[in-house]
Amino acid sequence: MNKVLIINGPNLNLLGRREPGIYGSQSMETCLAELRKLSEIEYFQSNHEGAIIDKLHEVGFDSSYAGIVLNAGAYTHTSVAIADAISAIELPVVEVHISNVHARESFRHESKISSVCRGVIAGFGLDSYRLGVEALIHS
Amino acid sequence: MNKVLIINGPNLNLLGRREPGIYGSQSMETCLAELRKLSEIEYFQSNHEGAIIDKLHEVGFDSSYAGIVLNAGAYTHTSVAIADAISAIELPVVEVHISNVHARESFRHESKISSVCRGVIAGFGLDSYRLGVEALIHS
Amino acid sequence: MNKVLIINGPNLNLLGRREPGIYGSQSMETCLAELRKLSEIEYFQSNHEGAIIDKLHEVGFDSSYAGIVLNAGAYTHTSVAIADAISAIELPVVEVHISNVHARESFRHESKISSVCRGVIAGFGLDSYRLGVEALIHS
Amino acid sequence: MNKVLIINGPNLNLLGRREPGIYGSQSMETCLAELRKLSEIEYFQSNHEGAIIDKLHEVGFDSSYAGIVLNAGAYTHTSVAIADAISAIELPVVEVHISNVHARESFRHESKISSVCRGVIAGFGLDSYRLGVEALIHS
Amino acid sequence: MNKVLIINGPNLNLLGRREPGIYGSQSMETCLAELRKLSEIEYFQSNHEGAIIDKLHEVGFDSSYAGIVLNAGAYTHTSVAIADAISAIELPVVEVHISNVHARESFRHESKISSVCRGVIAGFGLDSYRLGVEALIHS
Amino acid sequence: MNKVLIINGPNLNLLGRREPGIYGSQSMETCLAELRKLSEIEYFQSNHEGAIIDKLHEVGFDSSYAGIVLNAGAYTHTSVAIADAISAIELPVVEVHISNVHARESFRHESKISSVCRGVIAGFGLDSYRLGVEALIHS
Amino acid sequence: MNKVLIINGPNLNLLGRREPGIYGSQSMETCLAELRKLSEIEYFQSNHEGAIIDKLHEVGFDSSYAGIVLNAGAYTHTSVAIADAISAIELPVVEVHISNVHARESFRHESKISSVCRGVIAGFGLDSYRLGVEALIHS
Amino acid sequence: MNKVLIINGPNLNLLGRREPGIYGSQSMETCLAELRKLSEIEYFQSNHEGAIIDKLHEVGFDSSYAGIVLNAGAYTHTSVAIADAISAIELPVVEVHISNVHARESFRHESKISSVCRGVIAGFGLDSYRLGVEALIHS
Amino acid sequence: MNKVLIINGPNLNLLGRREPGIYGSQSMETCLAELRKLSEIEYFQSNHEGAIIDKLHEVGFDSSYAGIVLNAGAYTHTSVAIADAISAIELPVVEVHISNVHARESFRHESKISSVCRGVIAGFGLDSYRLGVEALIHS
Amino acid sequence: MNKVLIINGPNLNLLGRREPGIYGSQSMETCLAELRKLSEIEYFQSNHEGAIIDKLHEVGFDSSYAGIVLNAGAYTHTSVAIADAISAIELPVVEVHISNVHARESFRHESKISSVCRGVIAGFGLDSYRLGVEALIHS
Amino acid sequence: MNKVLIINGPNLNLLGRREPGIYGSQSMETCLAELRKLSEIEYFQSNHEGAIIDKLHEVGFDSSYAGIVLNAGAYTHTSVAIADAISAIELPVVEVHISNVHARESFRHESKISSVCRGVIAGFGLDSYRLGVEALIHS
Amino acid sequence: MNKVLIINGPNLNLLGRREPGIYGSQSMETCLAELRKLSEIEYFQSNHEGAIIDKLHEVGFDSSYAGIVLNAGAYTHTSVAIADAISAIELPVVEVHISNVHARESFRHESKISSVCRGVIAGFGLDSYRLGVEALIHS
Repeated sequence: MNKVLIINGPNLNLLGRREPGIYGSQSMETCLAELRKLSEIEYFQSNHEGAIIDKLHEVGFDSSYAGIVLNAGAYTHTSVAIADAISAIELPVVEVHISNVHARESFRHESKISSVCRGVIAGFGLDSYRLGVEALIHS
Repeated sequence: MNKVLIINGPNLNLLGRREPGIYGSQSMETCLAELRKLSEIEYFQSNHEGAIIDKLHEVGFDSSYAGIVLNAGAYTHTSVAIADAISAIELPVVEVHISNVHARESFRHESKISSVCRGVIAGFGLDSYRLGVEALIHS
Repeated sequence: MNKVLIINGPNLNLLGRREPGIYGSQSMETCLAELRKLSEIEYFQSNHEGAIIDKLHEVGFDSSYAGIVLNAGAYTHTSVAIADAISAIELPVVEVHISNVHARESFRHESKISSVCRGVIAGFGLDSYRLGVEALIHS
Repeated sequence: MNKVLIINGPNLNLLGRREPGIYGSQSMETCLAELRKLSEIEYFQSNHEGAIIDKLHEVGFDSSYAGIVLNAGAYTHTSVAIADAISAIELPVVEVHISNVHARESFRHESKISSVCRGVIAGFGLDSYRLGVEALIHS
Repeated sequence: MNKVLIINGPNLNLLGRREPGIYGSQSMETCLAELRKLSEIEYFQSNHEGAIIDKLHEVGFDSSYAGIVLNAGAYTHTSVAIADAISAIELPVVEVHISNVHARESFRHESKISSVCRGVIAGFGLDSYRLGVEALIHS
Repeated sequence: MNKVLIINGPNLNLLGRREPGIYGSQSMETCLAELRKLSEIEYFQSNHEGAIIDKLHEVGFDSSYAGIVLNAGAYTHTSVAIADAISAIELPVVEVHISNVHARESFRHESKISSVCRGVIAGFGLDSYRLGVEALIHS
Repeated sequence: MNKVLIINGPNLNLLGRREPGIYGSQSMETCLAELRKLSEIEYFQSNHEGAIIDKLHEVGFDSSYAGIVLNAGAYTHTSVAIADAISAIELPVVEVHISNVHARESFRHESKISSVCRGVIAGFGLDSYRLGVEALIHS
Repeated sequence: MNKVLIINGPNLNLLGRREPGIYGSQSMETCLAELRKLSEIEYFQSNHEGAIIDKLHEVGFDSSYAGIVLNAGAYTHTSVAIADAISAIELPVVEVHISNVHARESFRHESKISSVCRGVIAGFGLDSYRLGVEALIHS
Repeated sequence: MNKVLIINGPNLNLLGRREPGIYGSQSMETCLAELRKLSEIEYFQSNHEGAIIDKLHEVGFDSSYAGIVLNAGAYTHTSVAIADAISAIELPVVEVHISNVHARESFRHESKISSVCRGVIAGFGLDSYRLGVEALIHS
Repeated sequence: MNKVLIINGPNLNLLGRREPGIYGSQSMETCLAELRKLSEIEYFQSNHEGAIIDKLHEVGFDSSYAGIVLNAGAYTHTSVAIADAISAIELPVVEVHISNVHARESFRHESKISSVCRGVIAGFGLDSYRLGVEALIHS
Repeated sequence: MNKVLIINGPNLNLLGRREPGIYGSQSMETCLAELRKLSEIEYFQSNHEGAIIDKLHEVGFDSSYAGIVLNAGAYTHTSVAIADAISAIELPVVEVHISNVHARESFRHESKISSVCRGVIAGFGLDSYRLGVEALIHS
Repeated sequence: MNKVLIINGPNLNLLGRREPGIYGSQSMETCLAELRKLSEIEYFQSNHEGAIIDKLHEVGFDSSYAGIVLNAGAYTHTSVAIADAISAIELPVVEVHISNVHARESFRHESKISSVCRGVIAGFGLDSYRLGVEALIHS
């Protein structure tokens, strides 16, 4: 019950390469290596909204997971369908963001998914994932 | 010309399992079995916006269908691209919803697709699909 | 318990004569004749908001009716008082519209009554009434 | 074809007695007497939205009238049903107001009926009715 | 000069029977009996906006009344015509509500009539009427 | 004191030539000829906001005029400066429009100048000017 | 259990001296003297939002009080913190206002605290306090 | 460095067949043939938002291209994820539209991607693509 | 029929001198010299809204021009009068901007004139003028 | 470097004559005479937006001036073109207003030019000009 | 009557130390020393909204002061209570700001207090205080 | 440098006692005891906005702290002054919330302080504080 699924949404496959002033220059691989010291981690990334929903359905009823850490990227601000998927499944979902979205463009201040997640963590760089995993495995 | 395509959008693959207080506990299979007594039915479900558009294009010019019954799920509220696909094809499309979307969260009150559909039916549980099929084959 | 009350709101007494491009040229009488093959139908039309409320009160607690099919016309978009009457009574109410209100002026996209009705049917011409009656007597 | 129907809406039965700083102290009777020198005038006043709609229906298809001068009072700002009645009938309707509604509270700046009337005349006291009658009988 | 007119608007004829969780189960008759110990009371109820305006005009210039206690029900939120009638008459009007309208749906937070009433009392069940009568006869 | 200044704003020099479906095919000259049977008329047209203000200042304190009939064209919807000029001068100004601006694009529904004019006349073609002149010389 | 706490918010220490056209020229002391004939009254005034919250906490769980009458002054329109304090405590709170806030500037039409109070009384001058006390001790 | 990638978004696979009144009846193939006289062209079309993002990532760091001409179709108005992909890559992107989107429905007036593109070209039919290619290869 | 009129609006006389970070340091003269290799060019600049309208009227019916390239500068965002002039004339108008207005302040995202122009080109520096001329002479 | 240009916008040529309740009855000449005791003053007034821009361009790069004091009158609230001119020039501009614009109609609360001026001074009658001149010559 | 009270609101105790790019590096003490050459100055700073109100009450009726110069800091944008205090007292209040608030974040463009102050001065660094004092002692 | 200041805002002194359905029934003391195992903790609670600002100033420049964990309670949604204090100081501030504010009333979705904090953690009950402390001491 210590297993955690981490889902990364659109453009997060470019971490370390994309706008390092905002997203840092560390890669997701380094981050995952550290997280695997804390917990068993499954990792999934897709630029396709539908594929993220499919993944949430696939794992979301599997009680061998403690929960899901989701960085939905830009879909955070537009996807009612992902929010509905989170409502539909049984596992808790923690919303995380690398940057402090509230200090960026105003369209990034609104999240379609926050209200159906257990909680939200934003602004701590890749450390946001570690805090998200801890939030799931300690509660 | 009595054939009808039913398209179900995101999260509707979980019918019967997902939030039964809202969506009921009947499965789509039972519903389809009943509808097939009324008419020849083709059924398609996807969580991918693009796949729904592809399907609308594939069938939308085929005059052997009376029309399309579309429950676009959450894409109802966000997808201009599906609305454009409905405008682009020749078959009539009837928008249906299982729940009364107007009695739920305010973001569900706006539909991007209603204005390009022939009509809208919402709130009658899975019976909404039957009414949608009837609306197509009797007009 | 197969009896249905149909209420038509303002300007619907001019059906067949009024803007036929939008409302068609069939009269309500022809429509009622067909509906009476399906079910026992009581019919009421008024241009007075208060008279519609009085009628809802009069019939709304009478369990010999399966329910009420209501085309509130323009009061759909302005009458909180009719919405309150629907909430106050016991019979289910189905909201119907002849035209696809969502394809018309934006002020017709908002309904004050949808959230307190069982469901909504719009855009199928006078066939919307038949679908509304069916929705009531089959559920 | 020189006949004109003048309809006055809610609270206009109190003309001369109601807020004379805004509506003046002249009575409607004096005004009608002067208008009858210009044209054959029928006069109707009601505080009931439905009664105004009934009257519009009753006269609105009668080609012995040149048209209708309508001061819908407060219903100007709220009644989609009266606007629909104006669209439904055949006679032209001229919207008039005694006061300059644009120089008063902001909710009086919006008219639900202007877009379906032939034209609008506002701000000339009871002289607005005379200008409205002239607009109808000279065109 | 101790006489008070109480006007109840739409759906308030169903008090005691309608949504008792919101409006309580006491009837208006019991309430009126108690109020008549305080003051001479005239009572009027109508579901018709126009009839409420007619009543306000009829009594509103009669100085044998201390004033009017008005629960305009849903017309509170939509009727500019009733607000204009209150402005037009001479008696003071106190707006009352049984429920705390500010703790309900957001469309009930706006009153078209508050600004032309002497004051507002809301949320004390049928006791709101007593407080309204006291506000009139003690000032 | 029977003299009237008519001011036409931007693009009204093209009357008869510009979008005849909206503005008609009659020229301003014909219209002025008819108006000069009613009253002494001075006519001024400019596409320059500043020139219209200069003209309002030049004539606006001259008591040999009964007032000014102003069709400010597109400046109606944008010019606070013209509105301030109308407030600053002493002569009454009547706002006129050829077309029914309320039946056109929504940005034409708002007038910056209506609240400082004596009254508004819109929708009667070039006859709007005649009604404007009459409104000034009869009051 | 007949004890009532009256809390007055910012600037209400200036009653009788501040804008008498709006707030009257009677002092709070005179008002309190009259209220003490009805009930045991504790009185607290502060210009500090935090001090009002501290007071609500101090008294709000003390069942020897019937409740609290709160005129939060300008904090009515801005203080979510006071609203949260009202939700947090056990005693009922009645919101009162001396003036009819709905007839004043639009920013005074919104109350942050109404939805968590038992009810609202506004517009009756200092008599609003008496009605508030009565509302508490009679229910 | 003269190579250009053209990406077409949802429903643009139906060009020549879809709403010819808006999009013309020329096919994309004819257009591409002409563009290939100007420059080396790669062409990609998809109805899937995720697939467009994948393509932008695949080509967006390849300096053998002069840039990307993107007609994102309906995703123009909804996709923050495509906008983020454009920000993330290194090649310049030119936004093009066949129709003048500003002369169509208001929801088409807002582009989520314009602010991260080098420039925008809209309204010249299929000639918009040629202008887009020229803008890239001449700067 | 190869002649093109280029109109530059307010502050564009300062090109090369004004905010070079936004508008570049090339002068309009250099740009015109290059354009004259493509086509016969007439050039007009004014800071006066009225003068731009006068120019549009003067040339707009002259069929010896292929059309007009208009950079209306700040009037783009405020001038309904220029938009009306474009509608009134016969020649096509192409709207151009030097900078990518969508990447600047939000008030620059709205254009009053786009909907009445043939198309829009923005963001390519002075090259926007060349693309505008090409759009006119090749279609 | 002690020279200051004062620019007055539309309707300010009527100072002393126009709405003295708002703008006072002192003339600009008296004010200028006093200012000339402080500094060398050039004065320019125009009702033409374009002429104000022309003047800003003419003087705005002349380092013999300490800066410009600008009362743009109604153009304050509508002119993006004047704001762009202020950004384009080199001299600092101080925005002044005679009346306290924030205590007047809400459309006067927004200034298009404040953000590009060095500072703002409003509400001190003609003394606002003196404070504006002092602000320039002491910094 | 030459005495002036200067009130500084929240965070202004950090002047010289806090964000010097915005607020400069001069301390308030230096500024006060210079102002004391002009006039007798009392100085008060607090981070507490209530304490600022208390101070306004304490001094606001004392005719030995010419007035109050108030930099309410962030309370400028949120405090209706301070605005009410300014209305309640007798001395004139001048609102000042060190930075040009209109060139900063949009929430700083709205002031709750401007409409009840005599005037506003913003953007001149600490010199704004001097101009505020001069505005009071010269009028 | 491992010291952390925890600041709790209004009503958080009632933790364990206040709305346990939302805030839980654990007390802050228990929580602090656990946190003190992780790090040296200073704790401060106040219902006064000004006192929170004073505390931020007092500690905010003291480099012996790793940072500040701030649960500003209701001031989160209203206090620009606290946001300015956070900007003014040098220590990083982490915003925490016990409940998932995004799943509650819409006014709790907006935070005035998020944009100036390092990051945000919400929805994990009292565990949010632990995550906040970890976020500070690990980065």
